[in-house]
Amino acid sequence: VGDLERALASVVGAAQVLVDDDVRSGYEVDWTGRFRGRTPAVVRPGSADEVAGVLAVCRSLGAAVVPQGGNTGLVGGGVPLAGEVVLSLRRLATVGPVDRLAAQVTAGAGATLEAVSSAAAPCGLDVGVDLAARGSATIGGMVATNAGGLRHLRHGAMRSAVAGIEAVLADGSVVSHLGGLAKDNTGYDLAGLLCGSEGTLGVVTAVRLRLVPRLGDDLTTALVGFSSVDDALVAMRAAGVLEAAEVMFPSGLALLGTPPVSAPVVVLFEWAGSSPGVPDLPGVLDAAVATSSSQRAALWWWREAHTEAVNRLGPPPHKLDVTLPLGGLSGFVASVPSLVPPGATVVVWGHLADGNLHVNVVGPPPDDDSVDDAVLRAVAAAGGSISAEHGIGTAKKRWLALGRSEAEIAAFRAVKRALDPDGLLNPNVLLP
Amino acid sequence: VGDLERALASVVGAAQVLVDDDVRSGYEVDWTGRFRGRTPAVVRPGSADEVAGVLAVCRSLGAAVVPQGGNTGLVGGGVPLAGEVVLSLRRLATVGPVDRLAAQVTAGAGATLEAVSSAAAPCGLDVGVDLAARGSATIGGMVATNAGGLRHLRHGAMRSAVAGIEAVLADGSVVSHLGGLAKDNTGYDLAGLLCGSEGTLGVVTAVRLRLVPRLGDDLTTALVGFSSVDDALVAMRAAGVLEAAEVMFPSGLALLGTPPVSAPVVVLFEWAGSSPGVPDLPGVLDAAVATSSSQRAALWWWREAHTEAVNRLGPPPHKLDVTLPLGGLSGFVASVPSLVPPGATVVVWGHLADGNLHVNVVGPPPDDDSVDDAVLRAVAAAGGSISAEHGIGTAKKRWLALGRSEAEIAAFRAVKRALDPDGLLNPNVLLP
Repeated sequence: VGDLERALASVVGAAQVLVDDDVRSGYEVDWTGRFRGRTPAVVRPGSADEVAGVLAVCRSLGAAVVPQGGNTGLVGGGVPLAGEVVLSLRRLATVGPVDRLAAQVTAGAGATLEAVSSAAAPCGLDVGVDLAARGSATIGGMVATNAGGLRHLRHGAMRSAVAGIEAVLADGSVVSHLGGLAKDNTGYDLAGLLCGSEGTLGVVTAVRLRLVPRLGDDLTTALVGFSSVDDALVAMRAAGVLEAAEVMFPSGLALLGTPPVSAPVVVLFEWAGSSPGVPDLPGVLDAAVATSSSQRAALWWWREAHTEAVNRLGPPPHKLDVTLPLGGLSGFVASVPSLVPPGATVVVWGHLADGNLHVNVVGPPPDDDSVDDAVLRAVAAAGGSISAEHGIGTAKKRWLALGRSEAEIAAFRAVKRALDPDGLLNPNVLLP
Repeated sequence: VGDLERALASVVGAAQVLVDDDVRSGYEVDWTGRFRGRTPAVVRPGSADEVAGVLAVCRSLGAAVVPQGGNTGLVGGGVPLAGEVVLSLRRLATVGPVDRLAAQVTAGAGATLEAVSSAAAPCGLDVGVDLAARGSATIGGMVATNAGGLRHLRHGAMRSAVAGIEAVLADGSVVSHLGGLAKDNTGYDLAGLLCGSEGTLGVVTAVRLRLVPRLGDDLTTALVGFSSVDDALVAMRAAGVLEAAEVMFPSGLALLGTPPVSAPVVVLFEWAGSSPGVPDLPGVLDAAVATSSSQRAALWWWREAHTEAVNRLGPPPHKLDVTLPLGGLSGFVASVPSLVPPGATVVVWGHLADGNLHVNVVGPPPDDDSVDDAVLRAVAAAGGSISAEHGIGTAKKRWLALGRSEAEIAAFRAVKRALDPDGLLNPNVLLP
């Protein structure tokens, strides 16, 4: 460790190599508390070249590396589970000038989503991906995990927002393609490949982002109650161009208090401008409509407070982020209680238009992965995906074969070996 | 050749192995006539398993393969320049049922864009990518080249339309991920990697496509004249949500007759519904506005007839498909005549919003690539891309390093080696 520390300090300066127990500990555990490990050192490079230098040191000393951004991941993909060096990208936080003509901006990997969104605001622009962890989640981490979030139905996932990437590969080479041209068919889509690769193929150091028109205050938000998920889907199709469609259920809402709308299925819809008339949508049981900024925030609170409420229940929740085919969503929701042990608390919410549910299961012991196994097998059997937007990380790698064939996993391994032959980069995630 | 022919026939049947000179010749030359070669056999498999069988035969006999769809490519990426076996995918032309709930369809690689568009029409849906060769271009080829086209400003390139791919890799394994889930972060983006890989990493056999709402007849199309490209860009930004913005110049329009609008720069704008008032757009010199279907087709003719008109000029044109940063578009257009030899005819048109120009140069001899060299260097110097939407193919591989660094090309090579270690798949394109 002494050698490693000295060698890392020679690249980034001693102040940017963190070895004190107290300081390291914040980097060693994930946000849910479910995934934790130990690292010999947290290293905080200040440039892509310093990242390359850190990788060279680690390669020469045989030390594996886990890249870390805002540490808001939920699948244990960014913490040192097997003694990896933590490569924190947070210092690469520069946000460049907004290019108004192209509606683009270049951001360092360590810039938070909120920082980039704020930089785009004066130009009437915004990042098309939004999520509750916006104040901590970094652009690099969001690219590495192909983050989805609240606006996916409108603007797609992070991969859609990426117009170019700068990254350091395992061999220390820096690949940079940040020109942001709208059309550019010159070789393989390295940026798209790195996006969603969970730090296993390269370390993203900067991103050229496509921006979208910013939603102003002229929005309509509604909590709308339905008898069933299928009814909610029918209404969603009739609702025109939506900015959000978040689905919740009584079991989750009850953790927060008495919601303004009570129904077996509650959906938060949001429209730019005025809504098409919420009471006229098919199947509506009850609704609360907000147009002022404070009223809208109050409705959103019912959705965004779910995560904290589940965390307050006690032991770290099992968080299963899955996609179902829309036609199978209703049946899956009905089946979830039968998949968990008696006494467990199940809280489900998600992104209706994407068929993306967050299945949270809390207690009872034993805290093994039998719940995860049952839920993920049910998802796969229904033609769904075992990871919608959180990624595979450590949490789901043993189930990867539920969603990917042997041939696909073999192709993943071939790509991994090609770009990281020594297994330097985040070697304990994604691939089983 | 006899061995090869017999072995291929054992996989696909003798009727699907074409060896007659007359029959082969149509597969040996590209659409422009600029790229031609010889093939020992054209083989037409009828399923993904037959594709795998063909690759096994070719691998065992050391015969390289060039996949071919509708043979509408413009960079020599789909013809047998060095004696490759032509693997024609046109028989994989099945278009599955349209999934209305998900707005998706699965199409065989050999289905034409027109066939898929027609299948989607009764559901009020369409493919988001459109291009003039729609009656011949196949979905597989469009994916392999990440085709862009006329609606790119609205819906992006083919990579945006791909929700999943079935492909045969060089080792004969079939990777299939056609579930079309909206969110699915389970490993590397193989589909996106194959998209734009020009047949060098795998043979696309089927594609799950995201569809978009179909444009009805309620459209407004206008030819609008401006003094300059910069004026046209300002008007474009003021024009609201556009379905198309195609730019033309007097030198091209004059090949077609006397256009309804005469100006230094002519742009075809198209809007869903009514236009925001063409005469009120800033900088308009002259305009012709059409709302009826026949009138609109008449305006589109001025744009779409460019390609044929250039081909009629005589020797095969040099077709350079490039992207410029929007801020550099005007200056580049002004500079093009100085880049070609005296006496050459230059015709330029393109997709204004993408900064994508098609630079066509005809004569005079010598028919070498000095014109290509001059134009592509000027593009690169201006921060542009040497290939916007046509790809690299054979035509541009010697210039790839103008747009990609040594480190990027090394990463491309590593990926190529990983997925096709024997160089079986289209070994003479893309990588220099």
